Amino acid sequence: MTVLVVGSVAYDTIKTPAASREDSLGGSATYFSVGISRFAPVSLVAVIGEDFQERHIELLRSRGVDVSGLQREQGKTFRWAGEYFSADLNSRTTLDTQLNVFAEFSPSLSAEQRRSPYLFLANIDPELQLDVLDQMERRPDLVALDSMNFWIDGKRDALNKVVANADVLFMDEGEARDFACEGNLVTAARKIMAMGPSALVIKQGAHGVLVFSGDTVFSAPAFPLDHVVDPTGAGDTFASGFIGYIAATGDKTPEGYRRAAVLGSVMGSFCVQDFSVDKLLTLSMQDIEDRFRAFSQLTAFAPLQDGGSLLTRN
Amino acid sequence: MTVLVVGSVAYDTIKTPAASREDSLGGSATYFSVGISRFAPVSLVAVIGEDFQERHIELLRSRGVDVSGLQREQGKTFRWAGEYFSADLNSRTTLDTQLNVFAEFSPSLSAEQRRSPYLFLANIDPELQLDVLDQMERRPDLVALDSMNFWIDGKRDALNKVVANADVLFMDEGEARDFACEGNLVTAARKIMAMGPSALVIKQGAHGVLVFSGDTVFSAPAFPLDHVVDPTGAGDTFASGFIGYIAATGDKTPEGYRRAAVLGSVMGSFCVQDFSVDKLLTLSMQDIEDRFRAFSQLTAFAPLQDGGSLLTRN
Repeated sequence: MTVLVVGSVAYDTIKTPAASREDSLGGSATYFSVGISRFAPVSLVAVIGEDFQERHIELLRSRGVDVSGLQREQGKTFRWAGEYFSADLNSRTTLDTQLNVFAEFSPSLSAEQRRSPYLFLANIDPELQLDVLDQMERRPDLVALDSMNFWIDGKRDALNKVVANADVLFMDEGEARDFACEGNLVTAARKIMAMGPSALVIKQGAHGVLVFSGDTVFSAPAFPLDHVVDPTGAGDTFASGFIGYIAATGDKTPEGYRRAAVLGSVMGSFCVQDFSVDKLLTLSMQDIEDRFRAFSQLTAFAPLQDGGSLLTRN
Repeated sequence: MTVLVVGSVAYDTIKTPAASREDSLGGSATYFSVGISRFAPVSLVAVIGEDFQERHIELLRSRGVDVSGLQREQGKTFRWAGEYFSADLNSRTTLDTQLNVFAEFSPSLSAEQRRSPYLFLANIDPELQLDVLDQMERRPDLVALDSMNFWIDGKRDALNKVVANADVLFMDEGEARDFACEGNLVTAARKIMAMGPSALVIKQGAHGVLVFSGDTVFSAPAFPLDHVVDPTGAGDTFASGFIGYIAATGDKTPEGYRRAAVLGSVMGSFCVQDFSVDKLLTLSMQDIEDRFRAFSQLTAFAPLQDGGSLLTRN
């Protein structure tokens, strides 16, 4: 099942206490496309400037990404510069944002893209996300949505509308609280679910994710790593594993969402082990499956059997 | 197996955005004793002042806690006042600390207590923790230890010594980083494990715990709650479930530590649902077992079988 992603393609300049990297390939649609290309056909809609390098288009193409929706416009490619603080890289600050051609981004879908069965609306202006939904020939089987505080504060009405049309919604913990105007995370999640999504993925950074679907909650930790290079793109790469699992299996049950979240965490954990999409490019399916198995080891414990006693040795 | 706990008994005054409580029964040894009394015999060593109420001694006694080591001294009982901020109660500030009789606390163990097979050294001056270890007739089968930043900064040498003598060490995420002088949590954990403990429990507050033991890591989330009243005592109540499981079953394998951590999380999740130990006092064993089962539901997902493929529907 082909997955259409609409989002950003960018050049990022990243500083961490240990290293830095200038003008590395980034953007939500880039991380998502490279990540999901292991699991499902992906078609990308994004805007690039005149300075966007042919070798980066070739890189995407070499992963099987349909780049026909990469619109090249006059001007420079979207640039973001950020610095990660503290030794665990859990906090960051934006040093510079140059929207460049991204400021006038107007997604235009081909006839084929309008029929995509799966759609990921990465973090862009919710009015553009609505416009993409309007362009679809029919409602996709799965609409997944990412957003951020900037739009919660600035374009709440449009965001409400696009959330009401989403099946799967990704939000940071703080964003979910802000969006629901509710401090308790479980109550906030219920309020947001009542707006439409059948699954809500609350991202907790280095602490993993909570997945609300139906009446159930699933918790997946972040995979503990002894070396984190650059957390940029971890959220979109998580989404690539999550949606990749669903697109590959067609499993939209709560059980499927659980495995999807684990595959998302697996992919996110690889992403942060190097700058840009570098680590994702080196992965074999065996690497991915090995870490999926390691995840089972990370969270498994002997359940309490029916009629069993908690205080007898298992 | 009897568990000896040495720690604080206090009166806490707590403010949260929703409610407040004055002079409620608190202290690390109180939360631990009431929590573990469901699972194992417990003997408490702590100091109280002249103002400590008989009904609170009776409360502990009614849970089967051996209160013979409760030393009453001239002066007032240790008092702490704190306020929790933000709607999720994840950050707090200390409004007032009156050490009172706790300032001169000098733990004195009875002949019977010196033979306790299990020992929990709650968060007190590491020099006192060493003194307690010296008083033991023989090394206990299990020594568990809690500490805090105050001692990491102020009494590192004594803390190093007591950590070297501990089997199980509880630390907050930030404390572990500070103690190991290492920003990466996995690397910090390995450094601390190399100092002696066979298990290290990294507490992440509302995000759960990571348990390092041997070469394995186990992640247990915090149980998602739609109403949190007062987080005070959650860490010591977690420890009560963790050590209670080991004391009841004798299981000190990595598998046992996993179940211990889940029972700890279960007990901690009950603790925060009311002020003081109020919720812990109302619990039936059925309540505890039900939430243990709910924990399995919270974290379970279909593993990848040997020879199985990740991308076929499970």
